[in-house]
Amino acid sequence: MTFRAQDSLAEQIAHHLERQIVTGDLVEGERIQEMRIVAELEVSRGSVREALLILQRRHLIDIFPRRGAVVTELTPALVKSLYEVLNLQLSLVVRRWAEVWQQTSLEPFMEGIQHIQEAVVEEDTELFFERSLEWLKSASVFVANPYLDQQLKDMQPSVRRAYYLALQMNKRELEESFSFLRGLLDAVLLRQSERAAEYLEEFVMHQRNLVLESLFRVKQIEMAWARRHRR
Amino acid sequence: MTFRAQDSLAEQIAHHLERQIVTGDLVEGERIQEMRIVAELEVSRGSVREALLILQRRHLIDIFPRRGAVVTELTPALVKSLYEVLNLQLSLVVRRWAEVWQQTSLEPFMEGIQHIQEAVVEEDTELFFERSLEWLKSASVFVANPYLDQQLKDMQPSVRRAYYLALQMNKRELEESFSFLRGLLDAVLLRQSERAAEYLEEFVMHQRNLVLESLFRVKQIEMAWARRHRR
Repeated sequence: MTFRAQDSLAEQIAHHLERQIVTGDLVEGERIQEMRIVAELEVSRGSVREALLILQRRHLIDIFPRRGAVVTELTPALVKSLYEVLNLQLSLVVRRWAEVWQQTSLEPFMEGIQHIQEAVVEEDTELFFERSLEWLKSASVFVANPYLDQQLKDMQPSVRRAYYLALQMNKRELEESFSFLRGLLDAVLLRQSERAAEYLEEFVMHQRNLVLESLFRVKQIEMAWARRHRR
Repeated sequence: MTFRAQDSLAEQIAHHLERQIVTGDLVEGERIQEMRIVAELEVSRGSVREALLILQRRHLIDIFPRRGAVVTELTPALVKSLYEVLNLQLSLVVRRWAEVWQQTSLEPFMEGIQHIQEAVVEEDTELFFERSLEWLKSASVFVANPYLDQQLKDMQPSVRRAYYLALQMNKRELEESFSFLRGLLDAVLLRQSERAAEYLEEFVMHQRNLVLESLFRVKQIEMAWARRHRR
């Protein structure tokens, strides 16, 4: 694993475990043993404990008194909660963006939307999600609110975990998702803040629904396997 | 200090330090020395480090590579950011509350508003703020969103720190603040979610402005002292 220089050791360990949870290497209900991580990454027990507290706060694990750290279950209710808060926060971001942008501050966003479009053309769903989220998040400079920034940072791994479920989007779905972002940007440029917030909501809810559908399919497959196993 | 049984040791240490920052026993720019806390509370260094990370996330301290933990400065910009996010979150809460309450779930809120009114009658500003915040926060059961709950929890110490500055409210100001909550509750009971959110915003902005005024006065006094000192 490559560690980013700017993060604390605990944050780096958390990032490593996050990646395993997001990609499903660590599954729902699986225990994360402190000592295993200590041995695997050759880090101190204290750093691992700090990392687990970071993951707990980000709703990726629960910590129980005797059982220790366990990967949380991604339920439909949790997915809905996640996108509800994300929509709330990002709607503040895009409204403010529409109100206060100046010509000089727009360039990275015009470039950004091109990079997102490239991901659509290449039908790279993960890249599309990653770049879209980054694009929206980077507009938070217009709000300049350290509390909001911390909250968006804490939400990110959960959002990534959720959309990882919806990576089987076809090209038409990707293009539809992209059209909401395109509409959002047009509204921002016309200083129509309410309109921008509406496009954002459509984008977020579209993504949420794809995740919920995938979650439903995964559960069905799991149940089919469990039935076969019982016979 | 009395420790609450349900919290982890680190959370309890964080709570202890929070109280000192809120009341001004620890002032802006002051260093918090790990080893002093270890000795004072007879706890492990690891727990103190965890506690400091909790305080950092709650924007009460900054942690610098060599200098260690330092109490953050409560600037007007930070106060505005704080109440902006608080308004955003609580507006979701009161809107949902107005939409979904049922007769059986209302009783604690009717009792709660009476307790807030008692604080107004007794002119106990701290109690008024404490109970108002608790009352609004407890309505988050209607949203039932674990991400939002975590965020509200993380915001609370900063809000407390801010309103501690505005404890010199006179009775008229307290009554005015209370009238917004009263209006909010009436709107909730009439299922007028937009109206409820408007009253919430008035309540939050009123509180914010009192804090900003107090902050301005404090800075003026500090500057006067600094001038006198230079002579």
